[in-house]
Amino acid sequence: MKQWLEDKLLQLNVTDQMDEVNGFTRLSYTEEEKKAHEAFKKVAAELNLDVTQDAAGNLWARWSAEKEDAPTIAVGSHLDTVSSGGGYDGAAGVLTGLAAVKRLKDKGFKPKKNIDVICFASEESARFGVSTVGSKAVAGMIEKDELGKVVDADGISIKEAVESYGLSWDSIDQAEKTTDDIESFLELHIEQGTQIEENGAEIGIVRGVACPVRLQVTVKGMANHTGTTPMHNRSDAFVAAAPLITYVEEQARKLNEDQTTPIVATVSTVHLSPNVMNVIHGEVQLGIDIRSVDDELKRGLADQIRSYCETMNSSVHVHTLVDNDSVHLNPSIEKKLVEITENTGYRAHSMDSGAGHDVMNMATRWPSGLIFIPCREGISHHPREHASIEDLNKGTNVLAAYLESETSEDR
Amino acid sequence: MKQWLEDKLLQLNVTDQMDEVNGFTRLSYTEEEKKAHEAFKKVAAELNLDVTQDAAGNLWARWSAEKEDAPTIAVGSHLDTVSSGGGYDGAAGVLTGLAAVKRLKDKGFKPKKNIDVICFASEESARFGVSTVGSKAVAGMIEKDELGKVVDADGISIKEAVESYGLSWDSIDQAEKTTDDIESFLELHIEQGTQIEENGAEIGIVRGVACPVRLQVTVKGMANHTGTTPMHNRSDAFVAAAPLITYVEEQARKLNEDQTTPIVATVSTVHLSPNVMNVIHGEVQLGIDIRSVDDELKRGLADQIRSYCETMNSSVHVHTLVDNDSVHLNPSIEKKLVEITENTGYRAHSMDSGAGHDVMNMATRWPSGLIFIPCREGISHHPREHASIEDLNKGTNVLAAYLESETSEDR
Repeated sequence: MKQWLEDKLLQLNVTDQMDEVNGFTRLSYTEEEKKAHEAFKKVAAELNLDVTQDAAGNLWARWSAEKEDAPTIAVGSHLDTVSSGGGYDGAAGVLTGLAAVKRLKDKGFKPKKNIDVICFASEESARFGVSTVGSKAVAGMIEKDELGKVVDADGISIKEAVESYGLSWDSIDQAEKTTDDIESFLELHIEQGTQIEENGAEIGIVRGVACPVRLQVTVKGMANHTGTTPMHNRSDAFVAAAPLITYVEEQARKLNEDQTTPIVATVSTVHLSPNVMNVIHGEVQLGIDIRSVDDELKRGLADQIRSYCETMNSSVHVHTLVDNDSVHLNPSIEKKLVEITENTGYRAHSMDSGAGHDVMNMATRWPSGLIFIPCREGISHHPREHASIEDLNKGTNVLAAYLESETSEDR
Repeated sequence: MKQWLEDKLLQLNVTDQMDEVNGFTRLSYTEEEKKAHEAFKKVAAELNLDVTQDAAGNLWARWSAEKEDAPTIAVGSHLDTVSSGGGYDGAAGVLTGLAAVKRLKDKGFKPKKNIDVICFASEESARFGVSTVGSKAVAGMIEKDELGKVVDADGISIKEAVESYGLSWDSIDQAEKTTDDIESFLELHIEQGTQIEENGAEIGIVRGVACPVRLQVTVKGMANHTGTTPMHNRSDAFVAAAPLITYVEEQARKLNEDQTTPIVATVSTVHLSPNVMNVIHGEVQLGIDIRSVDDELKRGLADQIRSYCETMNSSVHVHTLVDNDSVHLNPSIEKKLVEITENTGYRAHSMDSGAGHDVMNMATRWPSGLIFIPCREGISHHPREHASIEDLNKGTNVLAAYLESETSEDR
């Protein structure tokens, strides 16, 4: 099985070596994402699964139960990546989903329910600033008119991208499934952190997904010539904004000392104008990403930041870009996953996820679970992202045991 | 004369109104710069000046003395601009140079020396990051091979740009003039600051040009997921860099309290990677611009910044991009300009220039002077840049009086 995992990991990443200096770039609805989807179809076909593409470009590889109206257990993740990302974020879940099916088939298991391995389209927000488009469509969460206008850095709208991918934007809502279509959903993903290891465990079982509050802070100063504007006559927007960067980091660190639920906050985007050597910055726009599964805690920090901005020595405007409730996964699936993990011989660590995943949309409609496997040094969205074949194999074992247990009876 | 100044200001800016929301964009060696040069040729022709273009694209409009081997007094500035800049930076000097010639012609004056009004090419660094290309060529300061490879944001090299402008890069050094070709050079420019007004004067006479020390500081952290990387496991390059922004501003302010010679320092460029919402900054590159005519003072601040960087809690590399000696203009021309200004009925203020101008290259070879006229609120490199016709007229009067005095005798 390890050799199979190794081979198929390369195949799904459309490469002959995982150690790529510039990592992998398969942005949403591009030819690169499509090539990875073609590879998925090939591997699924080798396993005799029936693959269909839905109206959002998600692929569904079905292992059908004998009984025609059997319920469906779904597992899956995505194959798109950020720019110069790794080949495990997303791919690990797709690969182990297929591997779990192979394991069950190899031992002659016959599922009493359909098993669907899903390859979701367009999970990463790297291209359009909007994440999990494919799973949003499945969970009926697409606001077609508004979303269609969102553009990438080249001014190409998501609608145009979807259509040059060979789909119809106007039909994208046909990808929606009803509550009856799926009985439960499970995603496996790399942790993108180091908590599993730090807690001496091998598999992470996720209780909740910390969805972000995102603030956009615009600090206005006055653009002027760097050489001719005396220090006492300046209003440098970047100088005004600098203490906020420190404040966000320090407050988030402080809250982690006082609270049991973790919280993180990052000044992660910066846009400056005009950003040339001989002009003082007239305007700085900072994007702040705040996450905790404790919604009150994260909103409290957002409020602290808003108050801090009011004390700043400049014209400052704070706009709330995103304020989503965190997602709590299904407690009985979580419990079952912990038991199965321990029974399979691995130590399980119950934890929260700081990153969003397709499962957070699926969980709004179907009982859902999320399994983490470790990744080296917690590094992700980076060419050095890495998960060992050993850990992918452990994940496969847990997934297979879960699928076997869920589909041994037809209800 | 005021009506003429108003009309020709529009003509040289290739516009029918100065109040353009997006200002003027005439980048180096573009069609836009060429159109302004064409306008210069027209106005010069109306004044019966003989216009020639040199190998760097500079235009020379000559009012010839009767005697064939008479020496030459040159005045001038440039017509290119930054992106969305104003219509006075450069244009004021070209316009008032032509206006001074008109004033002398109108009153029947016959110069005993040639008077050249120069329209320099490519003064601004906005396109290629390299300033004053035209005047560098005249003063024999072009390093052809190295400079030719410098590219703009679209990857077009300065060599390619010069050639599609209709010139030959390989011949650009033919624009060089010898010490004998010019007796002295004078530039008029908008102040791009507010010192003239603050000192109750009407005309600034410049002693020296503060050339910059420019540092590029690279701060390295570790890119990682904003949601999954706990605060205690982070190495955020932007958080590490933030105190440096504050330090540069505070140290420069402090030095102005202690010193009589002004100094300015600005963190003026910022490049971040990857600069997306869900990734912690792995690398930040800050460009720092430090200027004072006191070279020791500015180099001292650069050293303080280098030392501060060594104390920073991160991997920091400081690279010196530029370290030029400041330029001291000709003291006897400066003295003469102060006298002429006062005799013409205006209050003169002796000062330094914080910005570089074509005159700083000309001064390396010929006795040179620089006159400033006020501009509204000191704003420059901005659509709101403005100088009044009244002030342009005063500048014309000083220039005309200077040219008359310099060319009344043939030696």
